[in-house]
Amino acid sequence: MNRITDLFNIQYPIIQGGMIWCSGWELAAAVSNAGGLGLIGSGSMKPEVLKEHIRKCKLATPKPFGINVPLLFHGNDDIFRMIIDEGVDIIFTSAGNPAKWTAFLKQKGLTVVHVVANLKSAKKSEDAGVDAIVAEGFEAGGHNGKEETTTLVLIPLIKEQLNIPLIAAGGVGTGKGMLAAFALGAEGVQIGSRFAASQESSAHDNFKKRIIETEEGGTMLSLKKLMPVRLIRNKFFHDVEMLENMGAQSEKFEELLGKGRAKLGMFEGNLDEGELEIGQIAALIKEIKPASKIIDEIMQEFKTAKLELINIAF
Amino acid sequence: MNRITDLFNIQYPIIQGGMIWCSGWELAAAVSNAGGLGLIGSGSMKPEVLKEHIRKCKLATPKPFGINVPLLFHGNDDIFRMIIDEGVDIIFTSAGNPAKWTAFLKQKGLTVVHVVANLKSAKKSEDAGVDAIVAEGFEAGGHNGKEETTTLVLIPLIKEQLNIPLIAAGGVGTGKGMLAAFALGAEGVQIGSRFAASQESSAHDNFKKRIIETEEGGTMLSLKKLMPVRLIRNKFFHDVEMLENMGAQSEKFEELLGKGRAKLGMFEGNLDEGELEIGQIAALIKEIKPASKIIDEIMQEFKTAKLELINIAF
Repeated sequence: MNRITDLFNIQYPIIQGGMIWCSGWELAAAVSNAGGLGLIGSGSMKPEVLKEHIRKCKLATPKPFGINVPLLFHGNDDIFRMIIDEGVDIIFTSAGNPAKWTAFLKQKGLTVVHVVANLKSAKKSEDAGVDAIVAEGFEAGGHNGKEETTTLVLIPLIKEQLNIPLIAAGGVGTGKGMLAAFALGAEGVQIGSRFAASQESSAHDNFKKRIIETEEGGTMLSLKKLMPVRLIRNKFFHDVEMLENMGAQSEKFEELLGKGRAKLGMFEGNLDEGELEIGQIAALIKEIKPASKIIDEIMQEFKTAKLELINIAF
Repeated sequence: MNRITDLFNIQYPIIQGGMIWCSGWELAAAVSNAGGLGLIGSGSMKPEVLKEHIRKCKLATPKPFGINVPLLFHGNDDIFRMIIDEGVDIIFTSAGNPAKWTAFLKQKGLTVVHVVANLKSAKKSEDAGVDAIVAEGFEAGGHNGKEETTTLVLIPLIKEQLNIPLIAAGGVGTGKGMLAAFALGAEGVQIGSRFAASQESSAHDNFKKRIIETEEGGTMLSLKKLMPVRLIRNKFFHDVEMLENMGAQSEKFEELLGKGRAKLGMFEGNLDEGELEIGQIAALIKEIKPASKIIDEIMQEFKTAKLELINIAF
């Protein structure tokens, strides 16, 4: 037990990251049933779809689960009211200002976590009253910070200045990675990519296969100036790169991007024209497995690696 | 004791990175005297200057020390023959092909380590017969890999496939960082930035002060397409960025860069016009201290953090 397992009332301090097009109710329920905290990623869902996922998730697990709400996509309070009405009491907000919704959600009795990519946002989140922070490094898939701070630097930097519990994300997908995060002061880990490639992930099979085939250097940060996002280097990535090199304005990007491309790639499996968000850790993911097996493996490796570390004589 | 302390016959598995304009004989001797492995960074030295540093270092410490030789700058065998003649028996090669010199150096009885930034070069180094590898992640200062793999991902990726001992570099400057590296499978750490800001560093005081003032986001990878290098975002950095945005050809960069700019910044203390190479970990460095104090602090923090990790109940 630690502050993270206490906070969410879970067995293992492993949070499955809320990911657009990958983490619906099946994945969230599987992770929660296995002792972690499953999150439904609402970023790719209309409110009525999200409501359906919440209801199905409740039927599929008696354990706690949460919703990730990217503030960028869900700017209105309807979504939060619906989530509260449905009885979900854990919210992870991301991609936006934590000051905007935290007080409201806390007042309603929810547990609130905000996802940050730098120290400044971490402080802002603590000031806003969140219960914990997910600090996500440069190696993470999907949206990313402009400072490009890696997890190895970001965790101690935040830990040094904040008192609330810290969940490390970005580059973590194994028990050893989790142990490294704990060595740096994290009390939990949020794992995205490895669960994106799980059996219960709602990602298209083509995308899952592409994740396990991804080698080192196969992902890269895109759209650095507009809104950094880590992608697999497919045709779409190179199209975006070409636009950037031509010095195109942001309207051009918005034309090329749009939410349609993420769906096309990750949910519909078009590996050339679609946007494929995944982390650097994909290079270490070799097999598509059930979420429960992933959690078992991570915890087993964590324990074994911890024993090995204890035996180091320095 | 582990394979790294055995290999170099040192007390602690801490290697001080060989850094141009920062790591002369004073720093190398101070680190070796304190139980780590000091390296003279030969990249900024003419052969006769290097010879002088080697001789002074020998007088200043009875303990082992080594030389870092960037193959990019020292393409001829004169430098290696001189090093061997002077009786130094530890060489760290970097920025080049390990296949070129390893066999020659091994045949002469030296211990050879190669610095890599990706799995492919790590394999190539093992094939070439090196005794150990330094794997340096994206967060490291100075020259960097095109894959942008962070230390958290790079170490397990290499560890999984190689048997020779692995030294982690990039983002490591504290005992907790060292513990994280060990959790991932490293058997030693190479620390640059923190020693660049040490009392015995030959860096200009202006540069040392700038290091400890550097905050998160204060460094960024530059020259991504030509030859990636992590720099402090000063005027020089922005001049390079402007050239890049203008789509300038490599001759233009060579005009702007040249080795003169690194000396100007790091050794002569011109913080606007000079090139200032430092890692992301600078954000965690707050004070200029003697190298021996740095090593004591790292080992103390490593031990304390290890005990805390043992008490985690998962």
